[in-house]
Amino acid sequence: MRVGGAGRTGCAQNHTQREWYRFEARALVTNRQSDPGTMSQSKGTVVLAYSGGLDTSCILVWLKEQGYEVIAYLADVGQDEDFEAARAKAVSLGAKKVFIEDLRKEFVEEFIWPWVQSNAVYEDRYFLGTSLARPCIARGQVKIAKQEKAQFVSHGATGKGNDQIRFELTCYALYPEVKIISPWRLPEFYNRFMGRTDLMEYAKRHGIPVPVTPKSPWSMDANIMHISYESGILENPKNHAPDGMFMMTVDPSKSPNTPDELEIEFKNGVPVKVTNLGDKTTHTSPLELFMYLNDIGGKHGVGRIDIVENRFIGMKSRGIYETPGGTILHEAHMDIEAFTMDKEVRKIKQQLSLKFSEQLYNGFWDSPECKFVRHCINKSQEHVAGTVQVSVFKGHVYVLGRESPTSLYNQDLVSMNVQGDYDPIDAGGFIKICSLRLKEYHRLQSSMVPKSK
Amino acid sequence: MRVGGAGRTGCAQNHTQREWYRFEARALVTNRQSDPGTMSQSKGTVVLAYSGGLDTSCILVWLKEQGYEVIAYLADVGQDEDFEAARAKAVSLGAKKVFIEDLRKEFVEEFIWPWVQSNAVYEDRYFLGTSLARPCIARGQVKIAKQEKAQFVSHGATGKGNDQIRFELTCYALYPEVKIISPWRLPEFYNRFMGRTDLMEYAKRHGIPVPVTPKSPWSMDANIMHISYESGILENPKNHAPDGMFMMTVDPSKSPNTPDELEIEFKNGVPVKVTNLGDKTTHTSPLELFMYLNDIGGKHGVGRIDIVENRFIGMKSRGIYETPGGTILHEAHMDIEAFTMDKEVRKIKQQLSLKFSEQLYNGFWDSPECKFVRHCINKSQEHVAGTVQVSVFKGHVYVLGRESPTSLYNQDLVSMNVQGDYDPIDAGGFIKICSLRLKEYHRLQSSMVPKSK
Amino acid sequence: MRVGGAGRTGCAQNHTQREWYRFEARALVTNRQSDPGTMSQSKGTVVLAYSGGLDTSCILVWLKEQGYEVIAYLADVGQDEDFEAARAKAVSLGAKKVFIEDLRKEFVEEFIWPWVQSNAVYEDRYFLGTSLARPCIARGQVKIAKQEKAQFVSHGATGKGNDQIRFELTCYALYPEVKIISPWRLPEFYNRFMGRTDLMEYAKRHGIPVPVTPKSPWSMDANIMHISYESGILENPKNHAPDGMFMMTVDPSKSPNTPDELEIEFKNGVPVKVTNLGDKTTHTSPLELFMYLNDIGGKHGVGRIDIVENRFIGMKSRGIYETPGGTILHEAHMDIEAFTMDKEVRKIKQQLSLKFSEQLYNGFWDSPECKFVRHCINKSQEHVAGTVQVSVFKGHVYVLGRESPTSLYNQDLVSMNVQGDYDPIDAGGFIKICSLRLKEYHRLQSSMVPKSK
Amino acid sequence: MRVGGAGRTGCAQNHTQREWYRFEARALVTNRQSDPGTMSQSKGTVVLAYSGGLDTSCILVWLKEQGYEVIAYLADVGQDEDFEAARAKAVSLGAKKVFIEDLRKEFVEEFIWPWVQSNAVYEDRYFLGTSLARPCIARGQVKIAKQEKAQFVSHGATGKGNDQIRFELTCYALYPEVKIISPWRLPEFYNRFMGRTDLMEYAKRHGIPVPVTPKSPWSMDANIMHISYESGILENPKNHAPDGMFMMTVDPSKSPNTPDELEIEFKNGVPVKVTNLGDKTTHTSPLELFMYLNDIGGKHGVGRIDIVENRFIGMKSRGIYETPGGTILHEAHMDIEAFTMDKEVRKIKQQLSLKFSEQLYNGFWDSPECKFVRHCINKSQEHVAGTVQVSVFKGHVYVLGRESPTSLYNQDLVSMNVQGDYDPIDAGGFIKICSLRLKEYHRLQSSMVPKSK
Repeated sequence: MRVGGAGRTGCAQNHTQREWYRFEARALVTNRQSDPGTMSQSKGTVVLAYSGGLDTSCILVWLKEQGYEVIAYLADVGQDEDFEAARAKAVSLGAKKVFIEDLRKEFVEEFIWPWVQSNAVYEDRYFLGTSLARPCIARGQVKIAKQEKAQFVSHGATGKGNDQIRFELTCYALYPEVKIISPWRLPEFYNRFMGRTDLMEYAKRHGIPVPVTPKSPWSMDANIMHISYESGILENPKNHAPDGMFMMTVDPSKSPNTPDELEIEFKNGVPVKVTNLGDKTTHTSPLELFMYLNDIGGKHGVGRIDIVENRFIGMKSRGIYETPGGTILHEAHMDIEAFTMDKEVRKIKQQLSLKFSEQLYNGFWDSPECKFVRHCINKSQEHVAGTVQVSVFKGHVYVLGRESPTSLYNQDLVSMNVQGDYDPIDAGGFIKICSLRLKEYHRLQSSMVPKSK
Repeated sequence: MRVGGAGRTGCAQNHTQREWYRFEARALVTNRQSDPGTMSQSKGTVVLAYSGGLDTSCILVWLKEQGYEVIAYLADVGQDEDFEAARAKAVSLGAKKVFIEDLRKEFVEEFIWPWVQSNAVYEDRYFLGTSLARPCIARGQVKIAKQEKAQFVSHGATGKGNDQIRFELTCYALYPEVKIISPWRLPEFYNRFMGRTDLMEYAKRHGIPVPVTPKSPWSMDANIMHISYESGILENPKNHAPDGMFMMTVDPSKSPNTPDELEIEFKNGVPVKVTNLGDKTTHTSPLELFMYLNDIGGKHGVGRIDIVENRFIGMKSRGIYETPGGTILHEAHMDIEAFTMDKEVRKIKQQLSLKFSEQLYNGFWDSPECKFVRHCINKSQEHVAGTVQVSVFKGHVYVLGRESPTSLYNQDLVSMNVQGDYDPIDAGGFIKICSLRLKEYHRLQSSMVPKSK
Repeated sequence: MRVGGAGRTGCAQNHTQREWYRFEARALVTNRQSDPGTMSQSKGTVVLAYSGGLDTSCILVWLKEQGYEVIAYLADVGQDEDFEAARAKAVSLGAKKVFIEDLRKEFVEEFIWPWVQSNAVYEDRYFLGTSLARPCIARGQVKIAKQEKAQFVSHGATGKGNDQIRFELTCYALYPEVKIISPWRLPEFYNRFMGRTDLMEYAKRHGIPVPVTPKSPWSMDANIMHISYESGILENPKNHAPDGMFMMTVDPSKSPNTPDELEIEFKNGVPVKVTNLGDKTTHTSPLELFMYLNDIGGKHGVGRIDIVENRFIGMKSRGIYETPGGTILHEAHMDIEAFTMDKEVRKIKQQLSLKFSEQLYNGFWDSPECKFVRHCINKSQEHVAGTVQVSVFKGHVYVLGRESPTSLYNQDLVSMNVQGDYDPIDAGGFIKICSLRLKEYHRLQSSMVPKSK
Repeated sequence: MRVGGAGRTGCAQNHTQREWYRFEARALVTNRQSDPGTMSQSKGTVVLAYSGGLDTSCILVWLKEQGYEVIAYLADVGQDEDFEAARAKAVSLGAKKVFIEDLRKEFVEEFIWPWVQSNAVYEDRYFLGTSLARPCIARGQVKIAKQEKAQFVSHGATGKGNDQIRFELTCYALYPEVKIISPWRLPEFYNRFMGRTDLMEYAKRHGIPVPVTPKSPWSMDANIMHISYESGILENPKNHAPDGMFMMTVDPSKSPNTPDELEIEFKNGVPVKVTNLGDKTTHTSPLELFMYLNDIGGKHGVGRIDIVENRFIGMKSRGIYETPGGTILHEAHMDIEAFTMDKEVRKIKQQLSLKFSEQLYNGFWDSPECKFVRHCINKSQEHVAGTVQVSVFKGHVYVLGRESPTSLYNQDLVSMNVQGDYDPIDAGGFIKICSLRLKEYHRLQSSMVPKSK
């Protein structure tokens, strides 16, 4: 599902001030009276992941053309969208029903929070914002498909990307008998719509409103966690990201000259309270807390990366991401975890986290292995509690200090000035035992030196 | 080996302007005529890792007191030190010989470069600057010990830290029959010198020059790669790092308001050329190139971290580090590697890198396993070549773009606008095969739902 | 704790027939009236892991000589021992109290069962029989030490082995303030008792009964899970194990010429029922079931291995083991697990199992990481249920077949004759997607071939 | 490629006596004069992996029917086949050319030997015999396809199995532009040939000789390393393998009552000499040595397993395998490796081996990651040298002893009777340092106990 860059650019010019998340929880359903005469001809009902943009609008109409009844499903995971307008548009294009669901709360609590616990980073750099949203949206869509007894689901993801996989694996996992219509993989569709021009013409011919602003020369995907930018001029990995592209974060060169200092409190490895040490504002509910961190991170230009990553299908792609709040949480959680988790537990959890990052990226959220890993990671977070103080400034997050009631840090033990319950002589024995192998290896190496005559 | 903060503070006030690395390669040896009468009483010869500071000066004198002849060994790995003054001091304290070696070139080429290839980060955050220097220094010291037929080596590392281990494991690995005198682990020493006051008194009594400036309330260790700060007031993990502590990097709030843009060229996974895209200066020799990156990184406040880490001996400690040039190289290498290395090779190499980070941190550089891992990592870098453009600004490094003659990135293949040698239908098959397991699992889960009567 | 081979040889000649596990659960305590006059001189109370053999009998007397009061602790983990005689001996040697505990049930249920779930094998070969028993015994000993308010514990493990570590880590983990007396690491002890002759002389002098049969030229350690043999003539890794050494298993060349076929039923990854398909006998309680598998495995010579392994302290040692029942369970559990566990969950669990094997071997049962891993492994066993049929014959266990109500095996799906819910065309897409990377790599390789002129 | 069980059963009744590997190295090519008139109509040339059996004979004729010219390619990887008869058959069915290549030597040296070095076992049980042969055969086939300028290759692997993947990934990796015809995945083929009856009818109609003996109710695949059995009656995982199914190994209940004792010498981790300690026969060339181990292993019934495994495509399948020589080598190599390889190197190599087993099983032999892993594993084998003595008896391989010039085993160091260069006091320090974390964890746990009032 691609979010049209143009529409976004149009309505989000003052992105640090505007209200990002103005849509209240709702599940609007608009019934459109089906013509009983055509019903009998229907190939069946499709629940389409609808974005309101040009692509999925064309797909909606095209599906009807093919003989399907279409239910539009639009999940609010925090993207900047006029959901009411999208609803009206879907209805006007012939959607039998339109479901709009605010999934932001469950997205934060059930998807982003486990990610915070995990510290998962794909290929050491990508914070997985899109990967997390897909199974959340697909789960909602499947729920509607089952409820509406639709045999089909459909989406607008391309045939080269990761999102088709993430979307469909969740669908198959939760609704194995579902049939998936992926137009961008169907020759009859992609041969008909070779480029944007074809879509525009089709739109005009079928009364689909077309964007009035020109499309930006890249595509983007937005949710409450991040915006990703790719394709178009970004496909050349040498090209720098253009000025003005980023929408969630201010350019660090234009960000405030004084930091914001935050205190983030964790319990069970998830944030439960954020306090701005300057103005003393606090946030405690997951969604508000996360939105606030997005505001602070966005204001200071935090969380921009430009990477080349390996898609699940094996091709390398270039992606640019901004993840303001997620970046702050990642740094803070890593710190409180290191402070409270045993060293060897941490190593094992680190491996689980690596697995989790691949599962997430590859679309296996709803798999037995991901369920298992989430369980284990959650278990590891039992004592991950305490507060971390961070400074957010000019694109960077600085950890300043931390404290915890469940820390395994022992100041007396580690102190250079206090002996604590520690006998330095033991370290000598420890080292000598550790060196046993090395000495044996040296012995072997020496014995293999060719003898000179 | 602790570097006295006081001396450093005294001579490095203008740390962004001063010449950090002014010491030319040299291996000064000062022979001091030993008294043949006392020779016969000698317990043997000790090569002492000497820093010129209060601790190792006291150790030098104490070792002589115990009946050893002492050779002072002072390695220049880029720390800010008046090596000539240190030499004179060692001689005046009774060192039989003094060896001062400039190891900076080999430190960069043989230790830092393999680290760059590896992307090794200890516990996801620490860039291992001290860990890399220890085996380099110890190797030099062992070489002198063997050359001088000394049966003993000694050092001033504390009994709670990692450095004693790193130092001694290298010694045992390269010189298994060596005997190590670690005063801070000997009750007769540490009970005599319970604190700095005892050292000061001993120094005064034995004509050891004492620092004129007060010691800073933390300890530090410096080399060309980084400076670490710990102990003292930093032992409370809640305390923020004090203003003015950092010596290699400017405070980002006072760093320039315009970035420096660099182009870094890699071959075999190591940097071979750095070009400042602003003033067009270039550096190609490893040592100069690295020092230049330190300058740029330092100027922009790059590479500061404040962490709690797990020492090898199992205690948690708080460390603050600044690694300006290393941070830039880490970001750039990660990018060019992702661009040129196969996805699955990368995964395996990532695991090797994790192992490497532990080996390094724990002091096992000179172990069979570390030798093996270095070999494998080096092999993985065969095609890691190309240039990365980065912007260095306000404490952060931004990757801007990259190109490579050996990239596995295929713009046609990944393009949204070009089909390339790719059939989207294949992705449908791929996804369905991937979902087989998930469907089976769903089947099992469904079958286990308790039947209602 | 070494079990004297001689005594064992004497009383266990008909090892396939004899009752191995004849000791009922008990916790005999024999109070011996302490002399109030000497009490005031006591250095404190030691709980000694007592085996009844020569070594620990000498240690008991020696500890008293040093001024300690000694409580003998003897755990029955299934070794072949005359516990009543041992009790009488300890009392006669001056033990203040003697505790004899039958830990076999908890050893099987709380230690061996998690091992069965894990499939843990140290270095791909060793089934960890001794590693499992040590924390079980030490836990019991610590419980007594706390109960009796003893500040000391002691054991007879040597200073080169793994058992000292396993024993002491458990003690420190459960009773951090305990002091451990490890005589074989104390110069005043090991310099006094340089060999068996010294022990024998000491024994004679102090009225300690000495074995009447000559000691076998190796040492052994036995419990309900296995017997290990090492040291003595086995220290030469080229020497073959002598005839007649093995005590739990018959020589396969003398074992029955017809197999026993068993059906083993699992729930939650642990065996809940064993049925002999020949004579229809069944066993369901953990201890009886395991003892029965030992009988069957022993009768058919199953579970003998001869390996060189790496001790935790880094030296290689040669060990010979026999693990009859454990080997049968390992094979059967591996089979039912493969049948019921998702492929990717299995991979993750396999890594956890590798970790577990190291934790176990190295003595970290009572560590946060081992607790965590046991939790995760146990979680992975939720659906590991069903029956496996095995044939036990001439030193080998053959899996014959399996069935399960929670299997993920789908006969229709996999069948060559039935299409099932499977479209072979998908496999073509799957393969082509998998080959994308390989083609890209080929492209790169081809481009790097030096051009000929 | 499935080898018809029937044919095999017919000609291999005395499998311990018969000469398995009677086919000399050869590359017979039979040219058949193509009709120039039909040439112009040709869709192109297909190199077909031809087995001589019913399936690939039908495919050969069917491909011609479709308008292709067919070159038959038959690789001898040690399967029991009348290659001359197969050649004649292919010619008579209209193959334009027939290539028969003896790949046994390269299969052993370039595929089986790296496997021996690796100790790779898929899912802890499967020794990968088929997985190893596929890339060897496909490589040969691709070589012919390129040489003959054929744009197509084809094979008879089914659409549900692993072999299609292994075959095709190698083809795509080595010959990216090749087109692969996989009839069992083409609806026009598999819908026409729904079962064996259809194939038989087609064969009769097209003059394809049909097997005179009834097909065995399972399928098998044979090469010099192993035979696998699956499908048919084996698809029910509860069914026991029928008597008489195994062809490479004698039933252990009928195998000799006296063992064969062998001494196997390794260099660089591969066997270089096998000596029968009974009759003193020796073998040194890789192919002969391996064939001899097959004879010995087969004679004693070694290497049979019955497992359920996870195919790459995610379905579980039941496979029964016999790998006589490979099993002996696996045991012996594991032993000499443990004897000569550093503990920590071994751990890393163990992880590489796990990766290797997956790469192999999944068909990624010719991938960058497998090339990398093979390089690393080979590097790890530098000092893996020495001899292992094994006893082969009644289905089991017993390691008896080992010796090596490059062992890291140090008898003095490990001895219970000799102190060696070892101070037991060090172990006390080692243990106390290891317990630091455990004590800290205990402290935390204790502090969290809810306070009682």
